[in-house]
Amino acid sequence: MKVKRIPVVSRVLEANDRMAGENRRRLAAAGVRAVNLISSPGAGKTALLEASIPRLVPRVRVGVVVGDVATTRDAERVAALGVPAVQITTQSMGGACHLEAAAVRQALDRIDLSKLDLLVIENVGNLVCPAEFDVGEEAKVTLLSVTEGEDKPLKYPQAFRVAKLAVITKMDLVPHLRFDLEALRRNLRKVNPRLPVVELSAQTGEGMEGWLSWLRGPGKA
Amino acid sequence: MKVKRIPVVSRVLEANDRMAGENRRRLAAAGVRAVNLISSPGAGKTALLEASIPRLVPRVRVGVVVGDVATTRDAERVAALGVPAVQITTQSMGGACHLEAAAVRQALDRIDLSKLDLLVIENVGNLVCPAEFDVGEEAKVTLLSVTEGEDKPLKYPQAFRVAKLAVITKMDLVPHLRFDLEALRRNLRKVNPRLPVVELSAQTGEGMEGWLSWLRGPGKA
Repeated sequence: MKVKRIPVVSRVLEANDRMAGENRRRLAAAGVRAVNLISSPGAGKTALLEASIPRLVPRVRVGVVVGDVATTRDAERVAALGVPAVQITTQSMGGACHLEAAAVRQALDRIDLSKLDLLVIENVGNLVCPAEFDVGEEAKVTLLSVTEGEDKPLKYPQAFRVAKLAVITKMDLVPHLRFDLEALRRNLRKVNPRLPVVELSAQTGEGMEGWLSWLRGPGKA
Repeated sequence: MKVKRIPVVSRVLEANDRMAGENRRRLAAAGVRAVNLISSPGAGKTALLEASIPRLVPRVRVGVVVGDVATTRDAERVAALGVPAVQITTQSMGGACHLEAAAVRQALDRIDLSKLDLLVIENVGNLVCPAEFDVGEEAKVTLLSVTEGEDKPLKYPQAFRVAKLAVITKMDLVPHLRFDLEALRRNLRKVNPRLPVVELSAQTGEGMEGWLSWLRGPGKA
């Protein structure tokens, strides 16, 4: 069973990488920085966008592509902030656990890239599959909430290896948890020693400046 | 790309279902009740087992099969309770985001089923893929932590449709969250009106009796 799957998977990944390359060239040509947010369900990707976007616009023109298995709730939450938001639901693609470059291309067709500086791609909530798929982003960012436990970088290493930034969310909950922040930091270093880490709370605003500065991109802080 | 994948996926699922059937017959012949725990990473599957197993043994003889992409930490945590625990890591299977029946069969070969009443299969942390794979369990149980937000049943409906029980974890954190418990209950009913729901905290012990009674099986409360 496994042996049979490999060539098909390779072909799928090759086709995806080709299309991701096209997306990347298109975004670069339009001068749009694209970041791809990866996390477990409920780690707070949408809440982070809700806290970030009002602090970025209008100086940084932001658009959002949201991936989910089902519902358009997150795109609605983002659109309520007055920025362009496109929802991709993967239910029609067999309930895929990640976004692929082809789906993101379709989303790009529905956004006026000439009016954007930053495109945030909020992937399907999942720490495994999205790490394996390039969708044409400039950087992947992996979020991890403190409620998920300090061992997650070791258990889902790929998500932290492919990331250009790790964001630890829900820092305001630390006092209410049995949670060893130093162990989490150590586990992140073990998996990816050069990964920059931002620790923040979208609710209290703690740590948001470091994240916003990274998000704006080099030389735009 | 999608069209090409479908026949392969069907063959994979068919082969999986055949093997799941074999696992199920083998477990039934040994008189072992098997439950398959599904959740996001960090929803507290292992913590729930750590709180449950000491209250079940020795009256209920428990064994555990743990799936993860990487590490054997969870099996070690369970084994520390003095019950048989087998870790399956899917990294060698391309980092699969779920357990398949074939992997569980190998785990069954390493446990003396004649000495068990209950086998808990702790799946890979993921709300999408594990819902699609039968591994031979009697029932799937889907866990959701209150920190993940009330919208998750709508966004990951399959995990709650295939479940025989939903367990809401980390109830002790509710006072520290912006979280609408009634909305979560409503969303669960929308997705699966007949799904029984247990609300608990493995840390405070709140709600554990309902869960343990369900886990022991019908007529064994």
